[in-house]
Parts: sequence; C-alpha cells; structure tokens
Amino acid sequence: MYKINVIGIGPGFEENMTGQAIQAIKDSQVVVGYKTYMELIRPLTVGKEIVENGMTREVERCKKAIELAMKNKVVSVVSSGDPGVYGMAGLILEILAKEHDLSKFDVAIIPGVTSANAGAAILGSPLMHDYVTISLSDLMTDWSLIEKRIHCAGQGDFGVVFYNPKSKSRPDYLNKAQEILLQYKSADTIVGIVKNAFRDGQIHQISTLGVLDQLDVDMFTTVFIGNSATYVENGHMITPRGYQI
Amino acid sequence: MYKINVIGIGPGFEENMTGQAIQAIKDSQVVVGYKTYMELIRPLTVGKEIVENGMTREVERCKKAIELAMKNKVVSVVSSGDPGVYGMAGLILEILAKEHDLSKFDVAIIPGVTSANAGAAILGSPLMHDYVTISLSDLMTDWSLIEKRIHCAGQGDFGVVFYNPKSKSRPDYLNKAQEILLQYKSADTIVGIVKNAFRDGQIHQISTLGVLDQLDVDMFTTVFIGNSATYVENGHMITPRGYQI
Repeated sequence: MYKINVIGIGPGFEENMTGQAIQAIKDSQVVVGYKTYMELIRPLTVGKEIVENGMTREVERCKKAIELAMKNKVVSVVSSGDPGVYGMAGLILEILAKEHDLSKFDVAIIPGVTSANAGAAILGSPLMHDYVTISLSDLMTDWSLIEKRIHCAGQGDFGVVFYNPKSKSRPDYLNKAQEILLQYKSADTIVGIVKNAFRDGQIHQISTLGVLDQLDVDMFTTVFIGNSATYVENGHMITPRGYQI
Repeated sequence: MYKINVIGIGPGFEENMTGQAIQAIKDSQVVVGYKTYMELIRPLTVGKEIVENGMTREVERCKKAIELAMKNKVVSVVSSGDPGVYGMAGLILEILAKEHDLSKFDVAIIPGVTSANAGAAILGSPLMHDYVTISLSDLMTDWSLIEKRIHCAGQGDFGVVFYNPKSKSRPDYLNKAQEILLQYKSADTIVGIVKNAFRDGQIHQISTLGVLDQLDVDMFTTVFIGNSATYVENGHMITPRGYQI
C-alpha cells in the first residue's frame, strides 16, 4: 500500500496542532503544501523532502504527492485548518478515484481545527446553535448555487460562517451575501469577523449585519453571522444554546 | 481577573488534543467536566482538584467552575470536540453574562476538533463543500425549528451533519429528518455514520439516505448526509469541491 497522510494543521502554529498531526509529519519522508502554510510548520519539516508551491496550484501539488507516494515514500499533504473543510482531503481522494486504483493507497486523514471553530473561539461562542458553512468563492462553484444557499441559510435562521469572503477578483460578493441575508435577518443581527485567528496579526471585530459591508474583510478573514438570538456582552459574541440558567 | 479556560478536547485522547489545550489543563488548578470525558483525559489531571458529574448537569457544572474561579483558582472546563459547537463555551459565557460581571473574568476558549471534522476524516471527505450542522435534540430547541432547518438544508443541497441524532427518549427523530430530506434529496444520496470517532470502539458505515432509518445510530453517533454530487469510491465518501482534475 502506498501511504499518504492528509493533515490538518489547524490555525498553523504547532501549539494549535494535534499530537497526531505533529507525529504524522515527523514520521513522513516528504511534506507537501502551500508555501504560506509550510512556513508556519517549518520547524517540523527540517531535513525532509519538501514540495511547496503557490495558491491555486492545489491539483499539481496533490498529483506530485501521489507520484512520490507511488515511489514508496511516506508522504504528508498539509492543509490549513481541517483538511476536510475546503481543504486537501477531498482533492487527494478525487484524484486517486479518477486516475489511480484507490485500493492501493492507505490514505489517513488527520483532522484539525477549522477556521469556523478557531475564529468562533476568538469571538466568544457564535456557533453554539445550528449553523451553515458557505464558501463565497465562485472559482469552482456557480454563484447561483452560492446565492441559493445563502437564501436557505437566512430562511432557517442559522448561524452562518463565510469562508473565502472576499478577494481582489470578487470584491463585492460579501456585499451581495449581506443583501440576501438582510431579506431574512434584522440589520441589528450580530456579526463578527476574525482575521488570522491564533496567528500573528490576529484581529477581530464585532458589529452588525447592517454595516457588514463597511468592515475590513479580506481573504484571510472568516465572517460569522449570528442567528436571531445572538447577543453581545462585554465584547463576546454569544449565541444561546437554550439552557435554563 | 478571574481565570476560566473552556477547553475543547477533540475526540478525547491526548493525541487528538492540541498542544494549547493540553498546556491549559496542565496549568490549571481545577478541572471541571462531564465524567465520561474526564475519564479520557485522566492522565492529564492527576493531582488537580476535580469537579465531575453526569450528563444534563451542565449548568450545575459551569456554576461550580465559576464559583471556584472566583476563589482565584485557575479553572478549566473541558468539553468534548470543540467547546463552541453544542459545547460548554456558550454556557459559561451565558451564565457570566446573566449572573456576574463578565468584565471581571478572563475567559479563554481553546478550540478543538469537533465531531463533524473527526467523523468526516474517518469517512473520507464528505464535508468538502458547503454544509450545515444541526442537532436533532429537542431538549432545548423546539422541534418545529429543527424541522424548518432540515427543510432549508434539503432545499440548499447542503451536506448535512446531524449531532445528537437519537436517544432513548426520541428514537424516531432521525427517521423524521430522513423523511424531510427525502423530499429534496434522492434516496440514493450517500450517507455515512461514525460512532466513537478516534476513540475505542470506533465504527463507521457508508450507505444511502433511503435506508438511513435501518442503520445502527445512537447518541454517540454522528450522521453525515452528502449533497447531490457526493459519491463513494473504495469505501471513501467523497464530496467533490469542483476542481478540474
């Protein structure tokens, strides 16, 4: 069996990784990843064969990882956050399913703390009730489907987490999402944004849905929209679970 | 400032916890938690003051933690998975907001790997696209709201994760959820269930929505419903992200 680990490194520093993730990297001969995230775990990869490249080159990276695994090297593909949430787990499995015999590969997926959970911890407890996770990137998903899902999230009074809320090529998608949610949610609905959760340069802000378009959001930011019961107390964004206190 | 950590222990064993979570427990004088989960981290709490009790006694547990923090003890409240997803983070903040002066408390929420991400890693990559997280427990939420959210999840072709899918007092709620989803999703939609992810007794199974009611699901199981593009290859549940391979 060829061995590939797909490893969630969480927010990025070693203290936010699980012991299982650290051990799997240490046990690997090759470590593959996006260069920005590889920087974060550099101390763990000293002396190992490294394959790293830039953003949007995920397919190339995963194919290289598979090629090296087929040379009987133990390969780890690292993914920021959790590899199963807009990460590398699916891509590795998809390529193996389409182009190889998946039964010949031992793929271990090692979960990590995803941005929704890392960011929520910084804000307080915005995700204590049912919530949806939506990526606002239309690079690989039709915008019409993204819009439909935002409508559904609004109708269900879900908490909402937006991944990839903005980039230079789509500066207005978060504004469009805001407009849709305002059809269902009050302008006073609590929102929170977190940039670089548990990393250098961490910033967070709590505000309301009515002015979401005025907040400083970029591609390293995760956006949290409360449900109708979410409130703020002393700088904490709190979504009640429903306990009788 | 009184110090309280709310710590996500992930699936439960030390190897699945983050370094930050382990360190926070080690630095605490008091550790508070549900006794089943406290068992999992027993080696970390030797020599510390322990407060543990049974399920459904969360409010009592959190109030005791606050009381001890107000005696200037460093207190950690442990929560399985991530404390911000149906966990203890919100309850601690809610009690402090209602009954105390929250500004006098330094509450550190330390994220962990939640059941959705742990279970997904066992199944393959079921959550690679937008998904919703819904608890099927109506102990603290009206069933009518839960039903509404299941409808919205179906309409939006989201992946769905059900927490608390079944208990002795509500053996048929998962069947009701299945019936609702079948109004929107094909009976062939891939589903996966994971019991005790990354714990002793781990079991998982992949099947289809049409026969979800026949699978062996209990309160320690997390249930995953694919979107319309989810498929199975060699025992892996794969939801495509949309990459051109």
